[in-house]
Amino acid sequence: AVTLCAAGAVGFVAVVFVLRWVLHFKEGLGWDGGLAEFNWHPVLVVSGFIFLQGIAIIVYRLPWTWKCSKLLMKFIHAGLHLAAFICAVVAMVAVFDFHNAAQIPNMYSLHSWLGLIAVILYSLQIVLGVGMYLIPATPVSWRAAFMPIHVYSGLLLFASVIGVALMGITEKLIFGLSNPKYKDSPPEAVFVNVLGVLLVVFGALILWIATR
Amino acid sequence: AVTLCAAGAVGFVAVVFVLRWVLHFKEGLGWDGGLAEFNWHPVLVVSGFIFLQGIAIIVYRLPWTWKCSKLLMKFIHAGLHLAAFICAVVAMVAVFDFHNAAQIPNMYSLHSWLGLIAVILYSLQIVLGVGMYLIPATPVSWRAAFMPIHVYSGLLLFASVIGVALMGITEKLIFGLSNPKYKDSPPEAVFVNVLGVLLVVFGALILWIATR
Ligand code: HEM
Ligand code: HEM
Ligand code: HEM
Ligand code: HEM
Ligand SMILES: O=C1O[C@H]([C@@H](O)CO)C(O)=C1O
Repeated sequence: AVTLCAAGAVGFVAVVFVLRWVLHFKEGLGWDGGLAEFNWHPVLVVSGFIFLQGIAIIVYRLPWTWKCSKLLMKFIHAGLHLAAFICAVVAMVAVFDFHNAAQIPNMYSLHSWLGLIAVILYSLQIVLGVGMYLIPATPVSWRAAFMPIHVYSGLLLFASVIGVALMGITEKLIFGLSNPKYKDSPPEAVFVNVLGVLLVVFGALILWIATR
Repeated sequence: AVTLCAAGAVGFVAVVFVLRWVLHFKEGLGWDGGLAEFNWHPVLVVSGFIFLQGIAIIVYRLPWTWKCSKLLMKFIHAGLHLAAFICAVVAMVAVFDFHNAAQIPNMYSLHSWLGLIAVILYSLQIVLGVGMYLIPATPVSWRAAFMPIHVYSGLLLFASVIGVALMGITEKLIFGLSNPKYKDSPPEAVFVNVLGVLLVVFGALILWIATR
């Protein structure tokens, strides 16, 4: 219960940090083809793709869900993953739109390659999850045989998404800071580095809970 | 056995890629306070801290070690981790030395924060591993109780180190490429992005083997 609360708290603080980053240090939020539109990218990724996905993974471990039926718990798990996926897709639309408006090339970085691969595999994980565990026709023997793969690929995707976010943070701090630069450790740089550390701690707590 | 061979092959190709990166695209290797000294940083990290650590983690799963005594296997596991740690320390000396010679600030980036934390926790993992599993005095009940923590923190550190390397690759491609820049996808950018993908595949294979 202590780790559950700690994970929730650290994740919540990370969401507050990303909002403070874009609202206080950066251009705020908007949908105008400019930097305010780009800012939806980190906000939706951290609050949706990372925070919601993390909660979805540990939902079967939350004491209050134990009074729900197994079917309801599956709906909560699948629904949260679907919400996380939608956030990831909108986050990518925001950055593609911003790149196209600013004539910046698409898909050149390792961050963008691994990010797009992660989102595509995540959608596959949802489709296979629904097919295996929500459609009544699937035989119980298939469900059991597939479970180790579902858990392994789910945890691997979760960890990869956090790794992709750390690369994105690094890029944005290098591109976004000049005079003083990232190297000169202005307050924004230190603040966003702390956000990166929070994401790693959140990931470590979720992985601990899910592997007990 | 197929996954074992695949992990070895992908890890080996990653080491070849990092060598080709610094020898063909970059300034080569040297210990002169300049960029050739910096280049030891990615080379030692990929070949030592990532590749050797990965092999150390799966060493108990290699069929040829099954004829060895348990004590010998522990020495191989611990020895490979120690070698990986030494590579990580020399890799960090190289970049600190380069930064000091070039008057670049130290420890400003999220990459450097998470990298240093990972190396420190890795040294702790080695000390606790030796204390728990090599010193004969430690009671078997302690050994058994600590094993889930040893495995969790070992796998978490391994995954984190790969995440840190992906951030480092991103930084180096942004800093090191100009005219054409990273955005313009010169051959070096595509080549090193592929190295990043290889590191993720290597990590995924090791984690799969270690959790079967
Ligand atoms: C973990 C989830 C994330 C995913 C799946 C993801 C995905 C992507 C993709 C696919 C692109 C390419 C867009 C294009 O080429 O037009 C991109 C670009 C970018 N992202 Fe992310 N991103 C994630 C997290 C983040 C975070 C947290 C940041 C922090 C600000 C960030 C910063 C950037 C930046 C600066 C770019 C433009 C440079 C580039 O293309 O690499 N990303 N992202
Ligand atoms: C990308 C989306 C998904 C990810 C990342 C994911 C990840 C995970 C993880 C990590 C676990 C292990 C949790 C634990 O041990 O506490 C799990 C369990 C499970 N998931 Fe998913 N999942 C996804 C989508 C789905 C969907 C759409 C379904 C359909 C209902 C589903 C059904 C299940 C079931 C039945 C379990 C086993 C719960 C139990 O009895 O312990 N998953 N999932
Ligand atoms: C995963 C293992 C790695 C660890 C533990 C690590 C650790 C570190 C540390 C502690 C620093 C700070 C040095 C200083 O402040 O003087 C640093 C800097 C740097 N590293 Fe790494 N590194 C790793 C992998 C890589 C890789 C694979 C690259 C790819 C080239 C890389 C590129 C860089 C760059 C460009 C810097 C200088 C900029 C900065 O301080 O962030 N690193 N690294
Ligand atoms: C940073 C260094 C280390 C890391 C990252 C690490 C990681 C791991 C991992 C991931 C496993 C699980 C492997 C598997 O299930 O196949 C493991 C097992 C083990 N490690 Fe370590 N380890 C480290 C250092 C040590 C040291 C110094 C010792 C001392 C001998 C040690 C002793 C053991 C033992 C006895 C096992 C259990 C093997 C078995 O019976 O399955 N480890 N280690
Ligand atoms: O020393 C050892 O400790 C573990 C085990 O006893 C605790 O789980 C193991 O496999 C050893 O060889």
